[in-house]
Amino acid sequence: MIIKCKAAVAWEPNKPLVIEEIEVAPPQTNEVRIKIVATAVCHTDLHHLLETQEKDGFPVVLGHEAAGIVESVGPGVTEFQPGDKVIPLFISQCEECRFCKSPKTNQCEKAWVTPESRFTCKGKKVLQFSGTSTFSEYTVVNQMAVAKIDPTAPLDKVCLLGCGICTGYGAAVNTAKVEPGSTCAVFGMGAVGLAAVMGCKAAGAKRIIAVDINPDKFEKAKEFGATDFVNPKDHSKPVSKVLSEMTDGGVDFSLECVGNVGVMRSALESCIQGWGVSVIVGWTDLEDFSARPVQLIAGRTWKGSAFGGFKGKQDVPQMVKKYLDKKIKVDEFITHTMTLDQVNDAIELMKQGKCIRTVMTVSSQ
Amino acid sequence: MIIKCKAAVAWEPNKPLVIEEIEVAPPQTNEVRIKIVATAVCHTDLHHLLETQEKDGFPVVLGHEAAGIVESVGPGVTEFQPGDKVIPLFISQCEECRFCKSPKTNQCEKAWVTPESRFTCKGKKVLQFSGTSTFSEYTVVNQMAVAKIDPTAPLDKVCLLGCGICTGYGAAVNTAKVEPGSTCAVFGMGAVGLAAVMGCKAAGAKRIIAVDINPDKFEKAKEFGATDFVNPKDHSKPVSKVLSEMTDGGVDFSLECVGNVGVMRSALESCIQGWGVSVIVGWTDLEDFSARPVQLIAGRTWKGSAFGGFKGKQDVPQMVKKYLDKKIKVDEFITHTMTLDQVNDAIELMKQGKCIRTVMTVSSQ
Repeated sequence: MIIKCKAAVAWEPNKPLVIEEIEVAPPQTNEVRIKIVATAVCHTDLHHLLETQEKDGFPVVLGHEAAGIVESVGPGVTEFQPGDKVIPLFISQCEECRFCKSPKTNQCEKAWVTPESRFTCKGKKVLQFSGTSTFSEYTVVNQMAVAKIDPTAPLDKVCLLGCGICTGYGAAVNTAKVEPGSTCAVFGMGAVGLAAVMGCKAAGAKRIIAVDINPDKFEKAKEFGATDFVNPKDHSKPVSKVLSEMTDGGVDFSLECVGNVGVMRSALESCIQGWGVSVIVGWTDLEDFSARPVQLIAGRTWKGSAFGGFKGKQDVPQMVKKYLDKKIKVDEFITHTMTLDQVNDAIELMKQGKCIRTVMTVSSQ
Repeated sequence: MIIKCKAAVAWEPNKPLVIEEIEVAPPQTNEVRIKIVATAVCHTDLHHLLETQEKDGFPVVLGHEAAGIVESVGPGVTEFQPGDKVIPLFISQCEECRFCKSPKTNQCEKAWVTPESRFTCKGKKVLQFSGTSTFSEYTVVNQMAVAKIDPTAPLDKVCLLGCGICTGYGAAVNTAKVEPGSTCAVFGMGAVGLAAVMGCKAAGAKRIIAVDINPDKFEKAKEFGATDFVNPKDHSKPVSKVLSEMTDGGVDFSLECVGNVGVMRSALESCIQGWGVSVIVGWTDLEDFSARPVQLIAGRTWKGSAFGGFKGKQDVPQMVKKYLDKKIKVDEFITHTMTLDQVNDAIELMKQGKCIRTVMTVSSQ
């Protein structure tokens, strides 16, 4: 049965979202229809809205960092039933492709195959974003892109495990493979950067240098485990030089959590020769990143990470458990709470760097 | 005692070398004076001669891929004595610094500290290149940059283990860590690239795709273990696309053995998402390499390798042993033999890509 519900529709790039009534079709084969309880705004939503190069990406319902409750399931779905608490995944885990079968990666072969949208509004097809679209009271997601989580988990908190926290934490733990006793630098103290700091600490890093041009972020960084703070604006020399001098030659691991190609270069150049590992975590597709070949030839490694290397279906429930066991912070990322109606205010806060995460209540449970 | 001997002096950039009589001072503390028996020409010599940006790098004696016999030792040298067969190392192994003590790298902290030259010619100080300078009948090298090798080794062959062969072979085995059953692509079929092919094969690669714009190199590549050949000039689409189609999504490992930033990008883009590893082996410092961030975010890793990651003092003797045990090819790299007097002809051959390696006899044993 079609559900009519409220959603924030992005009709065109660079324009405020509009709260509309949309129709959400029933789940088809292998699909799950989810009532979204809480969703946060992530930079990738902004990226699509403000910087996208895909002209055909509108109208669309944004949002991909969320948690909800299964409302109904389509034919062939056996592992979910109505009432299950779930987190939708923007990187699927089909469990069948060569990538899912490899322990080396979470890049499911079906991750970027856009499923057909189940949304219409005013008679027009409205696209789904990242296969999820959580700025809506209801959404339809393929079962390979849904993680079933502990039924006791508070959805207005664990929604953050749908993207930012896992992305940063996993980049440190899974991709960089931060080692006990090591020195790390994390560039950018947004939610992803703070989660990366938390990941470095969990992995046993001895020294964690937080880098941000906004000094207001440093108090928060300390809470998450940062031991040192560098504001590039306080120095006339390049930040890589500052870090190199602070650490006798450079850090063992650096994580770029901004999505800026200049920062990517600085993060690489901040690493020590011989074994330094730099991980690109921030997203941009507008420009090339670059460096001098000698940076790598001298023994540095440049990597990248998507969703922290986590295989969503298997690992997200584990991250939820870690939160319930108080082994990772989640509540501390939430600086603002709103309702879906206020989505444009939430976007504005993020654009201005005034929030870490704004969680919006979408539906009552 | 000062030795007067013959050497090829590069008086200035971009000019032919001149065979001169030079004075070689006695070895000082911790130094070893070596009679060079055989030396080859490597691209890095050409790079310094033709592309250097260091204005102060002349006059200089080039050459760093060689083998010889210890003539005398300075105070404090206990591990070498006159008559020892040795290979000089352009990357030292001091065995004391944090890099030497780490199993992760061969980037000795003292590797790029230029020692004082022991050469003079016509009353002028002549620089040593890469701490070695093997285009000379005698040279003086710090003992931390000398590998003692099996006394039965033929110096006119194993001289090649002083740079190119170890660089390519090690890049595959030590840096890329090529896995059994994997698919590899090697870009550039010079000595380094052929050695990388040999390394991929030794590591158990199932398929090794040789890429070169000179089809004459392909017969040789086959000898070393290449299974497929791609000439980018035969295709209108980018070579990364060609490789991706040949390999159902890209190769597991790629090695750039050219020293060209465009090829570096192609090599990365030829790798499969999720776990592809690309290694920069070729040397250039004139330009940045670059790529789109999504290439790494999708799970590729970009690394670099110097001297194949080999710690010279400990590993080069092992490579000599592998050659004596017929586990690696060396003779097959030698396409031309000359004497030091013909060094400009040898350089010309390499500039024109007409040789793999030219070995020059320098002194009789």
